Amino acid sequence: MSNPSSLSGPFATGLKPPYWAVIFASQREGRDAGYAEMADHMVDLARRQPGFLGMESTRDAQGFGITVSYWRSPEDIAQWRLHAEHSDARRLGREQWYSQFELRVAKVERAYAFERSAG
Amino acid sequence: MSNPSSLSGPFATGLKPPYWAVIFASQREGRDAGYAEMADHMVDLARRQPGFLGMESTRDAQGFGITVSYWRSPEDIAQWRLHAEHSDARRLGREQWYSQFELRVAKVERAYAFERSAG
Repeated sequence: MSNPSSLSGPFATGLKPPYWAVIFASQREGRDAGYAEMADHMVDLARRQPGFLGMESTRDAQGFGITVSYWRSPEDIAQWRLHAEHSDARRLGREQWYSQFELRVAKVERAYAFERSAG
Repeated sequence: MSNPSSLSGPFATGLKPPYWAVIFASQREGRDAGYAEMADHMVDLARRQPGFLGMESTRDAQGFGITVSYWRSPEDIAQWRLHAEHSDARRLGREQWYSQFELRVAKVERAYAFERSAG
């Protein structure tokens, strides 16, 4: 069983496989229409779900982004999928915010970390 | 067995699970020192390896990036890891280009795609 990673900084660190990853690659459209607020709210909400372990997310200047969230089990992922506010956000994503996305659910089998030592 | 995805555009599309993902989250340092050329060369080289299926990659203005490459099997990933030029590039990454990274190897069990229809 993994412990939750540090929730500060861009990396999800210290997770011990096996655990699960949801890999979400998406292309944003030009219109904002509440996107940033909803995205922040979904991150806050996800962090409070059972089995949430961590998240890494980035988006480039062309609007192509990858967000990977990490979970204890596929059951935890399924529960988060059923959350009412998350369902609403996903609908808005398809209707307004994303022109295309690919979502993958994967079991993390191995992991390696590197951090430059100071000096 | 998956077929290789389209190699154009930011998305790896049309892959049929199960297949494998290498999730590489990294923080770049300020110095460039040949990074862009090496990164492009590694992408070209990876695409020609046995079992390579596709890649998605993005990096934000703060230098935090996520690259996910997709592979037919863990054996294909292990072979790519042993490639001499790739080994050299990884060493330079640790020495010069990345202050921190997390690398995860995961088995993709399920996938969903969305693309906005025109009009």
